[in-house]
Amino acid sequence: MSKKITRREMLKLTGMTAAGVAIGASGFGGVAKALGYNLMPVDDNLLAANKVMFYGKHQSGIATPVQKHVYFASLEVLASTKEELQDLFKLWTPLSVRLMNGEDIGDSTTNAYVPPTDTGETNGLDASNLSLTFGVGPSLFEKKELGLAHLKPSELKELPHFPKDQLDEAFCGGDLCIQACADDPQVAFHAVRNLIRQASGKVLLKWTQTGFNALPANGGTPRNLFSFKDGTVNPSTPTDFDRTVWVDSGKSWMTNGTYLIVRRIQMHLETWDRTSLKDQEAAFGRHRDSGAPIGKTNEFDEVDLTAVDKNNKLLIPEDSHVFLAKKANKTILRRAFSYSSGIVSATGAYDAGLLFISFQKDPKSFIDIQNSLGRLDRLNEYITHRGSAIFACFPGVAKGSYIGEALFTTL
Amino acid sequence: MSKKITRREMLKLTGMTAAGVAIGASGFGGVAKALGYNLMPVDDNLLAANKVMFYGKHQSGIATPVQKHVYFASLEVLASTKEELQDLFKLWTPLSVRLMNGEDIGDSTTNAYVPPTDTGETNGLDASNLSLTFGVGPSLFEKKELGLAHLKPSELKELPHFPKDQLDEAFCGGDLCIQACADDPQVAFHAVRNLIRQASGKVLLKWTQTGFNALPANGGTPRNLFSFKDGTVNPSTPTDFDRTVWVDSGKSWMTNGTYLIVRRIQMHLETWDRTSLKDQEAAFGRHRDSGAPIGKTNEFDEVDLTAVDKNNKLLIPEDSHVFLAKKANKTILRRAFSYSSGIVSATGAYDAGLLFISFQKDPKSFIDIQNSLGRLDRLNEYITHRGSAIFACFPGVAKGSYIGEALFTTL
Repeated sequence: MSKKITRREMLKLTGMTAAGVAIGASGFGGVAKALGYNLMPVDDNLLAANKVMFYGKHQSGIATPVQKHVYFASLEVLASTKEELQDLFKLWTPLSVRLMNGEDIGDSTTNAYVPPTDTGETNGLDASNLSLTFGVGPSLFEKKELGLAHLKPSELKELPHFPKDQLDEAFCGGDLCIQACADDPQVAFHAVRNLIRQASGKVLLKWTQTGFNALPANGGTPRNLFSFKDGTVNPSTPTDFDRTVWVDSGKSWMTNGTYLIVRRIQMHLETWDRTSLKDQEAAFGRHRDSGAPIGKTNEFDEVDLTAVDKNNKLLIPEDSHVFLAKKANKTILRRAFSYSSGIVSATGAYDAGLLFISFQKDPKSFIDIQNSLGRLDRLNEYITHRGSAIFACFPGVAKGSYIGEALFTTL
Repeated sequence: MSKKITRREMLKLTGMTAAGVAIGASGFGGVAKALGYNLMPVDDNLLAANKVMFYGKHQSGIATPVQKHVYFASLEVLASTKEELQDLFKLWTPLSVRLMNGEDIGDSTTNAYVPPTDTGETNGLDASNLSLTFGVGPSLFEKKELGLAHLKPSELKELPHFPKDQLDEAFCGGDLCIQACADDPQVAFHAVRNLIRQASGKVLLKWTQTGFNALPANGGTPRNLFSFKDGTVNPSTPTDFDRTVWVDSGKSWMTNGTYLIVRRIQMHLETWDRTSLKDQEAAFGRHRDSGAPIGKTNEFDEVDLTAVDKNNKLLIPEDSHVFLAKKANKTILRRAFSYSSGIVSATGAYDAGLLFISFQKDPKSFIDIQNSLGRLDRLNEYITHRGSAIFACFPGVAKGSYIGEALFTTL
């Protein structure tokens, strides 16, 4: 079965990102067995049809190699009892399996006198590597009628205010999120639309954001709208993921889950575009074209914060994004998308930037990094955080179980 | 050279859409020669690198098979003389060639002490079938300082108010448009961003809209967010294009050009999704899944407005979209995209729908169709027109010439 497996497909199966792991095709079977990320059953059909597995130890859309598009939906929950909410996730489970399998959520030879079960706009498209990631926000646990307050993880609370935040309530918070990622934007949209439609009156859209990734045909880290590679230092091995992303075993209903942080970061492209390459690179702490740390040659060369030039001056400036982020000494999984949503009507500037999404076993990692960036980060001059939310993403779903089961069966 | 040409690639070269023309690969050379749409020089490299030709009798992005993404930009012109505007198009010509060739607009080994010439976010991506279409709006001719008033075609005027229009000024009008279409959204965005950036103070963004198309891997007409195929009756042969799209020879600077009409049409998905399949089909006048006219089996079966069922009742309802549109007896080239831009904050409904774009040799064709739809079209219940603009698109550019030359050299 290894005959047709490309590097990207293998990475998809093993849940590894582009960096750091080289495995020959012949070694694939063993690797697949050794890992638990959205893997089994592994078969050629799965690969051929651009499908991501729904079932697994962890949810899809996290270790899954990043797709071209995201439709991120933050929802308000209207369910009035815990059982109603539980039923919603039970309902969404088989629907998610079908969607990620590239199928309609219901029989298409439906009774013409009722609305079609599936809205149908993906007919003719394949699964397009759709992944679906579900999470719950802090506000869900404050809904007394749901009786979930005692199950709120201590890590799950609204993010603190960071210097330079200029948040717009229209892109903040949410009781529940669905992150739908796919290589076709209509597939991602269709998934959210149909899940919400079937939830009839149990949820409302609070905010949504689309995003895209410029994936080079030959693989490699995509560039954001500042033209810098985004995601270079991501975890890549299963050990990295265990250390950085997955909540440790045995602690709570969140075991094998993770925390999702989403930030809608406007990039001031006009200002950026008036900045010299040298200053752009000094703001990031990396070279633009290669992605290498300043003074080095290759994207994956190690970032050495003590490296100096011949005048004994730090190569990576102390106020650069990379310097400050690394100084926090915390790791997160970045899984970001660019967005371009028209113009800001007041100024005529591009309403464009980064839909930053990160996954981490403890939100403190993100908070520490963000606090380290603080007021110092030279990149601050070019960006403004406009939206923010945090969600606790359930562990993966085993066959016969349903999304979020551990939350509902914990007393 | 025909050995590796797929149907899609052939269609791209011949400027034909999916319907209507079947040519064996062996017949390709002759067809290519017989047509003038963005063709020459035709070579394997052009195909291999996902490139659309810039030069040709007509501009790209019109007869070009529709791409996955659009970044549509409507601009305000700040140039204060005709020569300044002319210089802008002269500047944009070689830049457009480079962009459509998948190249940076300038040398990337630039002086690090100045801003990079190219913003760089497409490094690592190929041309992604980028097409660029330039047009000028009626308001451009009203700028006295430009002295173009006498060159305004009588066909180029703001569209009349149509029943059910609820236009938002934030998505209307413009002195100039750039329609950037590509199979990668970052490539489309990059093109507009760099053209505008180089136009330093000569243009301002007025409004922009992104859109996408759900292109089936095996070809065929894409579905809109109502799940109906969009573009079935499009012109497909060169004769069709001459009859429908291209302004006739010898009449004016618009010879071989065309008129672009863009409408931002919100689709009320929530209402639609509560409608029975039968009523959805009755609103369109077609079957959803096959795309066939009601009562027929295949998408491209002819629409017969007189066909009746066994009770002598019209198969295609008189108030259906297809019935009314066909009744106008006018043809246009539809080249639409879906959009999904978050939610309408006041209602929480999807801000999603159709970025309708059509090309026609005379805007009256669109106006007649729209007037025929009028208040009767049953689809009106599910859609609202929110944005509108019209642009006169120049003819194509010959080597050694520049975009819009005919406009500037006509006395």
